[in-house]
Amino acid sequence: MTHRAAPEHTHPDKVPLITALDALGDPVRLQLVRELAVSREWTRSCGSFDVPVRKAALSHHFSVLRAAGLVEQRDDGPKRVNRLRREEFDERFPGLLALVLRGD
Amino acid sequence: MTHRAAPEHTHPDKVPLITALDALGDPVRLQLVRELAVSREWTRSCGSFDVPVRKAALSHHFSVLRAAGLVEQRDDGPKRVNRLRREEFDERFPGLLALVLRGD
Repeated sequence: MTHRAAPEHTHPDKVPLITALDALGDPVRLQLVRELAVSREWTRSCGSFDVPVRKAALSHHFSVLRAAGLVEQRDDGPKRVNRLRREEFDERFPGLLALVLRGD
Repeated sequence: MTHRAAPEHTHPDKVPLITALDALGDPVRLQLVRELAVSREWTRSCGSFDVPVRKAALSHHFSVLRAAGLVEQRDDGPKRVNRLRREEFDERFPGLLALVLRGD
């Protein structure tokens, strides 16, 4: 999948709490975050996640995660690769990612 | 406002993380929780909160908060009064309420 424009990002420092909670309160996005948390940075392309949604919906979910300061993306040749913004998100919302990553 | 049936509750122990996050990821519900947190238990009736929604929507928001283990309600004469389930929610999701109550 080739992307024309570079993705827009929001730094966690600029993210309201409600945006973060809303981003994480969705099963697909929770799964994306959890898979990213156990993957090396910049190794996961958008299509590599085990979530039951089509490309347009997936693209929307990644856009929500970027806007919530949770995910950073960059284009690597034809692929868009991802990393979890763990440290900076943790600093903004201490304990929230830990809660999400401990499972249920 | 008189209620026919007693409200149904879910104990925080039975609440999935995603249900809690989704319940809190809404501006009206966040406001309800924050106002409850600074009120004495069982002193706030459903109509006493400073939120810009009508009765039917408010009733839905309280139902979401009960299902997320965040709020307990009981009928006190003609009023339905509320308390935040602070201790038991905290035990289930440590740190989450603190994050919500610290403001933005």
